[in-house]
Amino acid sequence: MSTIEELTAEIRTFRDARDWKQFHAPKEMAVALSVEASELLQHFVWLSAEQSEKRVLEHKSQIADEIADVALLLFELSDNLGLDLAREMRGKLARNEKRYPVSKARGSNKKYNEL
Amino acid sequence: MSTIEELTAEIRTFRDARDWKQFHAPKEMAVALSVEASELLQHFVWLSAEQSEKRVLEHKSQIADEIADVALLLFELSDNLGLDLAREMRGKLARNEKRYPVSKARGSNKKYNEL
Amino acid sequence: MSTIEELTAEIRTFRDARDWKQFHAPKEMAVALSVEASELLQHFVWLSAEQSEKRVLEHKSQIADEIADVALLLFELSDNLGLDLAREMRGKLARNEKRYPVSKARGSNKKYNEL
Amino acid sequence: MSTIEELTAEIRTFRDARDWKQFHAPKEMAVALSVEASELLQHFVWLSAEQSEKRVLEHKSQIADEIADVALLLFELSDNLGLDLAREMRGKLARNEKRYPVSKARGSNKKYNEL
Repeated sequence: MSTIEELTAEIRTFRDARDWKQFHAPKEMAVALSVEASELLQHFVWLSAEQSEKRVLEHKSQIADEIADVALLLFELSDNLGLDLAREMRGKLARNEKRYPVSKARGSNKKYNEL
Repeated sequence: MSTIEELTAEIRTFRDARDWKQFHAPKEMAVALSVEASELLQHFVWLSAEQSEKRVLEHKSQIADEIADVALLLFELSDNLGLDLAREMRGKLARNEKRYPVSKARGSNKKYNEL
Repeated sequence: MSTIEELTAEIRTFRDARDWKQFHAPKEMAVALSVEASELLQHFVWLSAEQSEKRVLEHKSQIADEIADVALLLFELSDNLGLDLAREMRGKLARNEKRYPVSKARGSNKKYNEL
Repeated sequence: MSTIEELTAEIRTFRDARDWKQFHAPKEMAVALSVEASELLQHFVWLSAEQSEKRVLEHKSQIADEIADVALLLFELSDNLGLDLAREMRGKLARNEKRYPVSKARGSNKKYNEL
């Protein structure tokens, strides 16, 4: 069981030992995050849903590695912007509760403005 | 202080109340994650580093909202794949310790294969 | 019938009338291109193949608009880098002919290194 | 000098020889396009503007290759959706003429809704 704060502290230690804060301006972090999220998606290009499930099983560690890359950047960016990530996530869940009321959203993949 | 497990449980509750697991196959999650990461990047298109810092201040809540979107998808995807996200993040940090030794990586923005 | 060169000249005229070349460094163009490509993908998040076909019909002009955005950036970037886009495309098709020989690739969605 | 129509016909020939139309539904094309655009961006992660210019010179053929990948997908997607890409591009340029009038947009990197 690990808190976001504990992990964030470890990321900060890693980064500061390398004096990398100078490269981690918000725009640069957003660029890196977008590229890493796309590397995750790259695993599934052209694949059907079934093939994608199979790929997850056969490339589990590579896919986990991409997910970790996204997470490391996300925790650091959140920290750099002075955000409390857990609080932001809960705030967004609460807003989504209103945008996607169970009565209307149940079993539907429509966007909230099309429900 | 919140653990990743606690937040993941809240995400699961939100999702299952809407019967959305059926839409959340790995490929679909990766598509959504990539699109949300790009919405974050969208804030900074064409902006200089200075303008980006200013944008962060002036659009803090919208940017926090995009970060939360990415995090919600990431925690759920990680859970769906049976991964322990904290463990994956620490594993990646450990691999990065080797790929980016402090002695070579300090103050450099080069990729590990170009160091 | 329009050549890439004719369209590129029109893009250049539009850009230079606004003195925008100063903002269009290669990295900035690549960021914008990635964000526009993602706006196109955004139309299809969570949708099944059938729902995606329906969305294309119902949002044809918005989707065409996103495609145009990507194309405008791509033609300009190619021009800025001094590339002959048609030549690059034909060169890539020729390399793909070798990476994906008809005898092996026919009816398969596997990547060339997995064929 | 090549028209978009000529290049699109060559792409169609390549694709149909491999019976790949079955994999090229709009959503799948948009996923692939987004991933290829991100591979282009990957070249510039963490790099300054100056380093990015240097990277363009030193990795010109790889970068041209990524640009070609995006273009091949874009021309085919446009064709699959029954669009006239040149017409869409000119239509978008005309709309941008109105959204970004020279008098207001000259020398500015602001978005049209912030001008």
